[in-house]
Amino acid sequence: MRAAPVIAAVGATPVKAEHAASSSRDLMAEAVLACLADAGLADLSAVEQGITSYESDHFNLQMTLGAVLHDTIGMIPKPNMRIEGGGATGALALRAAWAQIQSGLCASALVYGVEKNGRGLSSRSANQLFALSADAEWEMMIGGTYTGFYAAMMRAHMAAYGTRETDFAHVAVRNRHNASYNPLAQKPMQITIDDVLGSMPIAEPYKLLDCSLLSDGAACILLATEDWARAHCPRFRQRPPVYFAATGCGSDTMRLGDRYPHISNFRAKREAARQAYAMAGIREPRREIDVAELYDSYSGVEIQAVEDLGFVAEGQGGAAVSAGAFDLSGDLPVNTSGGLMGRGAPVGATGILQAIEIAQQLWGEADPRRQVAGARRGLTDTHAGIASISVVNIFERGD
Amino acid sequence: MRAAPVIAAVGATPVKAEHAASSSRDLMAEAVLACLADAGLADLSAVEQGITSYESDHFNLQMTLGAVLHDTIGMIPKPNMRIEGGGATGALALRAAWAQIQSGLCASALVYGVEKNGRGLSSRSANQLFALSADAEWEMMIGGTYTGFYAAMMRAHMAAYGTRETDFAHVAVRNRHNASYNPLAQKPMQITIDDVLGSMPIAEPYKLLDCSLLSDGAACILLATEDWARAHCPRFRQRPPVYFAATGCGSDTMRLGDRYPHISNFRAKREAARQAYAMAGIREPRREIDVAELYDSYSGVEIQAVEDLGFVAEGQGGAAVSAGAFDLSGDLPVNTSGGLMGRGAPVGATGILQAIEIAQQLWGEADPRRQVAGARRGLTDTHAGIASISVVNIFERGD
Repeated sequence: MRAAPVIAAVGATPVKAEHAASSSRDLMAEAVLACLADAGLADLSAVEQGITSYESDHFNLQMTLGAVLHDTIGMIPKPNMRIEGGGATGALALRAAWAQIQSGLCASALVYGVEKNGRGLSSRSANQLFALSADAEWEMMIGGTYTGFYAAMMRAHMAAYGTRETDFAHVAVRNRHNASYNPLAQKPMQITIDDVLGSMPIAEPYKLLDCSLLSDGAACILLATEDWARAHCPRFRQRPPVYFAATGCGSDTMRLGDRYPHISNFRAKREAARQAYAMAGIREPRREIDVAELYDSYSGVEIQAVEDLGFVAEGQGGAAVSAGAFDLSGDLPVNTSGGLMGRGAPVGATGILQAIEIAQQLWGEADPRRQVAGARRGLTDTHAGIASISVVNIFERGD
Repeated sequence: MRAAPVIAAVGATPVKAEHAASSSRDLMAEAVLACLADAGLADLSAVEQGITSYESDHFNLQMTLGAVLHDTIGMIPKPNMRIEGGGATGALALRAAWAQIQSGLCASALVYGVEKNGRGLSSRSANQLFALSADAEWEMMIGGTYTGFYAAMMRAHMAAYGTRETDFAHVAVRNRHNASYNPLAQKPMQITIDDVLGSMPIAEPYKLLDCSLLSDGAACILLATEDWARAHCPRFRQRPPVYFAATGCGSDTMRLGDRYPHISNFRAKREAARQAYAMAGIREPRREIDVAELYDSYSGVEIQAVEDLGFVAEGQGGAAVSAGAFDLSGDLPVNTSGGLMGRGAPVGATGILQAIEIAQQLWGEADPRRQVAGARRGLTDTHAGIASISVVNIFERGD
């Protein structure tokens, strides 16, 4: 197999509850211009392919929005395709670009994603639309929604392993704190565990402050062979190379009730991690990974993730989180960006934003207050719905 | 580069105006069961990845439908992603699978697509939804729809090259005639050029019988390395191998008014063909291609396509079509399946159905009345909207 592709350059808009004056096109253009500046490129003329990432047509009065964005950013007449897999959309788009480059189809691909999911959606619309991310034929009729299923999974985790509300409140506090060191973050907050425990119940055990954000934002990554990046991007030559070393993808049933043997953890995530670790040659993830962006759609999901990713044994996530293992001062800092809870979650851009955070960490360019010293290998974890699709991507610093 | 992937097996449902009793899940399962029978496989356990193809969330009360279908057909916990690019969706999904296999990420991938676009959509909904396939922000406010833009392009073609209404009526007659030899086809018809010319005007120069169909249907292709197919699929070993030899993809502006130098032809299609021919080593497409499925969303589009694909010089398409060059008795039969006009167009499945027709032609397994004798190389042509994205895939018989 060829040497892995590199991250040649990155760009993103600030993540906000609302970019009221900007359309999806505007946001995408802003992120691409930031990426060109980061690459030291004047335009996209040398870039060979575009891969578009956004979640759902339901959020847009536009079909084939990918073609509109491709036109907006000046990529015509080059190849374009849209990738979608719910919350995993951005990470899947990177995975697809990995394959395009490794197959020899191209030497460079721009992966670009956007969503306007924030305040522009009424909360009624948001609930209705996100309900469609569960199994609409079998679960909507029982009033099943997303938050309820996540809550049921966390209840199962608490029952099986003694995980405490204070454990996942720790995630809610820490990720919002981390966001205060990220200039692009939507909602940095300095809060306490008592603030989380005392916030309004949404679907118990989850309270308001256990929930992540709805956001507007865009992000892109220029992925390329190392030769291409070295030839075209002046800035790339000044940084240590960061390789997109491995990718894994797993899937699970849409219906929570179809899952086995239990619902406390994510089968799809374990499968994605297994594949990615095999590809990267990782045997002890806790020791061999230095920094990770985890899909904290709800605070407890991070606890489930650190188990499914093999950072701790099953059932040990809550205690490890509360002991600070994954804080900025811990041995494996996670969600240094602020995660979905603090940085925000413009869905089509989320997986790309995670990879950008890892790139900045491996380049050593993150704000010093959130920089993980000497980070050499990072991981991103995303999923669709309640992890009907899960993607784990791994990045490595090469020098 | 590795040897090209092969088509290990294929499966499809009949294409109908309505599969009233079948959901998208049901149709997808039916197509996959047909594919397993074709492969000689008992189940999908050996298949490594799934790639889902459907057009728009607007047609479904379900987000991340790909994950639902992946569950339905029993592919959990394997990798899954959805590919979308309007009408080019199915061909893009095959292109993505090509890259997954050629990159070494897997040795086998099931590409499966479905749409329920037929009578279940009211004609009002269909018009509203398809209008979203144009540039919704800039074209809907001027009453711009799809059919109107296609009609304007054909008017430009007529003005520039003297193309006649009888030329594209020939396409409408021939493709519906070809459909009568395809047992899966939605609407075989024995009509005359006068029938077409006398049918109700829709958007001049296009009349009712110049338009293609809205359809329900599903299709899938098992793509694999030749080694994998030989090891797993008994039926594959009894057929000449058919390779997915080359793929090209081009793009164009969403807005018709932004196009240059003229609107009589498809820039994206020329770019896709250029890439695919370069990859396949084709210099004289008219001579080197034996059979082709072209995207006849309106009858005149086929005339534009034979020019953009280099089968004839620009402006010569109408005369060549009327002379019968692309009929079953011609030197390069096209739309032997009946095309979008006769076989039908369940959007997410259309590009896959085209590739199935080419596979059957290259295997020599098409109905004798539509079989192209000795066909060794075939092409599929699809596009999104008015060709904002265009994909050309090329298949070759290997023995």
